[in-house]
Amino acid sequence: MSKNITTQTLQRLPVYLNYLMSLSGKHKNGNISATAIADALGLNDVQVRKDLATVSRGGRPRTGYVTAELISDIGHFLGFENHDGVIVAGVGNFGKAMMGSDSFSAYGFDMLCGFDCNENLTGTYINGKPVYHISEMKNFCTNKNIEIGIITVPEESAQEVCDIMAESGIKYILNFASVHLKVPKGITIHNENISITLAMLARCNFHENNS
Amino acid sequence: MSKNITTQTLQRLPVYLNYLMSLSGKHKNGNISATAIADALGLNDVQVRKDLATVSRGGRPRTGYVTAELISDIGHFLGFENHDGVIVAGVGNFGKAMMGSDSFSAYGFDMLCGFDCNENLTGTYINGKPVYHISEMKNFCTNKNIEIGIITVPEESAQEVCDIMAESGIKYILNFASVHLKVPKGITIHNENISITLAMLARCNFHENNS
Repeated sequence: MSKNITTQTLQRLPVYLNYLMSLSGKHKNGNISATAIADALGLNDVQVRKDLATVSRGGRPRTGYVTAELISDIGHFLGFENHDGVIVAGVGNFGKAMMGSDSFSAYGFDMLCGFDCNENLTGTYINGKPVYHISEMKNFCTNKNIEIGIITVPEESAQEVCDIMAESGIKYILNFASVHLKVPKGITIHNENISITLAMLARCNFHENNS
Repeated sequence: MSKNITTQTLQRLPVYLNYLMSLSGKHKNGNISATAIADALGLNDVQVRKDLATVSRGGRPRTGYVTAELISDIGHFLGFENHDGVIVAGVGNFGKAMMGSDSFSAYGFDMLCGFDCNENLTGTYINGKPVYHISEMKNFCTNKNIEIGIITVPEESAQEVCDIMAESGIKYILNFASVHLKVPKGITIHNENISITLAMLARCNFHENNS
């Protein structure tokens, strides 16, 4: 699946969804306009109309959207009905936080298991998900056609783990190690550096989500 | 401090810095050109020139940059010489990962302590940083003029914790709870939702860092 959408729009979609799902009364079983959504969330109504048009063709002049259809369209767009398997490499505090989070499933991701080189961890469970030895990653991912991997190992091991993921058929890598990783063509990596996010927030003129 | 810079440029600055600091020989003690940096990192040289011009006035035609000056300029721009105090609210796995990370200090952030409502955690230390009861947050932050807070509490407590931060003089909030938080005017919040980042990476046409 490949869709062109801005980060800002994508970040607002779950906000719309939460709001729509919290509705009761006439809006829940009936229609709702982009203007009403904008007012409720303190957003610009032109922007809301544009955002919703990206994911739904249900908007009608005067009547707006059928609420149930709009909820279904946003969820469908975001892939909430998917069951995309995800694995985590590195079961330290960060990896445990990833494995322990129940929020992935709401977005259509199945957190399957973690991998670590520490043999004391292999065979244990975090939030009901097994931890395997890192040497089993390639077999596991190849057999189950896993395409999404999260890297939460220390910097010094990150490139090696990244290389194993590439050999394992992983197509999308979310990297939390604060080191820039190189991947072969055909693999998409997002290097997420929380210190940089913090620097952007506190030192630069960057506050897309300010409300 | 307020600077206008794109996310993409800011994310590349530490990459330049890592590369420059890894240099040896003539480049280390001499000059380096934007073209040489671009070649080494597999980036477009026009972009590199533009990025560097944002943070340094040291670039000269033909000779390029004095390496040591460029290192200093980038570090200065990113605030690496600062000592901005940061506190964490919520000492679960995610909060522990934040408190346990040594990468913040390289970016000029002093991770000071964590706060939690669990009394079994108060009085303990994570990576040498103390955990205090959440009821002490307001006093602590007010007395020490802390401006930066990270929220790693569960969704249901996030707004309450956010409100306490606002009352405590916190000006910048990085929120990892997957719920959209409201803040008073004058406070900047960045809602970081890892599931959405994953959805953008794996389902949308978004790969700014692909290399």
